[in-house]
Amino acid sequence: MARETWGHGSTGRDVRLACRSGEIDYSTAGTAPGYVQANLAILPYEYAEEFLRFANANPRACPVIGVAERGSPFVPSLGEDLDLRTDLPAYRVWENGEMVAEVKDVSDYWRDDLVSFVIGCSLSFEEALLQEGLPLRHVENGQHVPMYRTSIPCVPAGRFHGPTVVSMRPLVPAQAIRAIQITTRFPSVHGAPIHIGLPEAIGIADIAKPDYGDPNPPREGEIPVFWACGVTPQAVIAQAKPSFAITHAPGSMLVTDRKNTEFSIL
Amino acid sequence: MARETWGHGSTGRDVRLACRSGEIDYSTAGTAPGYVQANLAILPYEYAEEFLRFANANPRACPVIGVAERGSPFVPSLGEDLDLRTDLPAYRVWENGEMVAEVKDVSDYWRDDLVSFVIGCSLSFEEALLQEGLPLRHVENGQHVPMYRTSIPCVPAGRFHGPTVVSMRPLVPAQAIRAIQITTRFPSVHGAPIHIGLPEAIGIADIAKPDYGDPNPPREGEIPVFWACGVTPQAVIAQAKPSFAITHAPGSMLVTDRKNTEFSIL
Repeated sequence: MARETWGHGSTGRDVRLACRSGEIDYSTAGTAPGYVQANLAILPYEYAEEFLRFANANPRACPVIGVAERGSPFVPSLGEDLDLRTDLPAYRVWENGEMVAEVKDVSDYWRDDLVSFVIGCSLSFEEALLQEGLPLRHVENGQHVPMYRTSIPCVPAGRFHGPTVVSMRPLVPAQAIRAIQITTRFPSVHGAPIHIGLPEAIGIADIAKPDYGDPNPPREGEIPVFWACGVTPQAVIAQAKPSFAITHAPGSMLVTDRKNTEFSIL
Repeated sequence: MARETWGHGSTGRDVRLACRSGEIDYSTAGTAPGYVQANLAILPYEYAEEFLRFANANPRACPVIGVAERGSPFVPSLGEDLDLRTDLPAYRVWENGEMVAEVKDVSDYWRDDLVSFVIGCSLSFEEALLQEGLPLRHVENGQHVPMYRTSIPCVPAGRFHGPTVVSMRPLVPAQAIRAIQITTRFPSVHGAPIHIGLPEAIGIADIAKPDYGDPNPPREGEIPVFWACGVTPQAVIAQAKPSFAITHAPGSMLVTDRKNTEFSIL
């Protein structure tokens, strides 16, 4: 079924049910416009307290918007009837830092000791930027936003530590100022940029060579604007090599019942 | 009397009365901490509507925080017992765009057709920046902020037109982002920056050579942050060469009863 079916007019729950039935087994990009899409990280209980401490200490990079109870695949605050085992199009399963499977349903991998973390995503603030008419080059080009490992260390917590990963959007200066104002209103989904201009000041040697995503260096008259990125916790988890983990597959997000606008504080 | 007398603990009214009595006849810098200091522009009635339209169309550069009634030297909303004829330390009197006098009292120049405009000043938001620990180089150096005529035209209104003048403060990127957030809260005193980075994009050929004030170019790791500046209306008035005008002398501001914090919208 064409992705367009899940565009305008579809709700987060519509999309989750379509994922659950297997009707959507690709990217959630463009589905359920206006609804919060989120990253998923699932860890054994023995890592949960450390990971929560890590998130608490690094809220810009790792904004946790929901935590399930131990062993539960449900997060009622984010969605009626939401089941983390089935409601994403695709998952990755990890053992000791190695991906061991990519699957469309993790019911067979579920364990009583798993704790699930739902982490905010820049798609929420990008919607607000686009609605104000700010151009997003990677969206225009149908590409992934460029992302960079920086020299800014995360505050470590237990086994979780590593560099802050940032996403970069090139904007002309007046747009950059406006983007700072708009994203400041969304502290629970990365919030304001953490850096602007001067890539070398945060350890980015070549702005044209991102560590993840597609290159989109600033053009003449533009400056790079850097936001803390949800890839940070993914990279930190990968580095910690937990005995077991489940994450969303890239682009296959959890679509919730919450609206992006609900996450604006002003 | 030493300036320190009018520092901590003095009110706007204390300072105005000391100006009126001649006790303060120098800069108001450092007096009545926390109270709004403002620019003053006084024009004949025949220019008033055009100037108000100019201000309305250019609120970032020309934020009018009070207008007196025709012929009146009082602005009750800004101060109990405030008298614009006597309450500034020094004034400049202009005829046809030429300064004809610098005086400590303009009672002898007062006319029934004068309309007085009180215009917000960056001192209000600078207090907020300093209170959050952001460094202001020109303050540290005891200098005037560097200011530049830009290629950004003001929206013209009648005889009033000209380039936007900006003030520049060099900051490291994270401080620049914070400064944008803080000054966004002060829309009635210039508000958020209008430009950041890339001086050449707004017609500034050499950041080390300001048109007004003292040079303070960004150092390694800093970027220039540009706010619309209250010198804009002064320059626009000078260019319009009105038959008559009175302004504050540089640094001799109107000190009001309003607190800077009252001008924060958030």
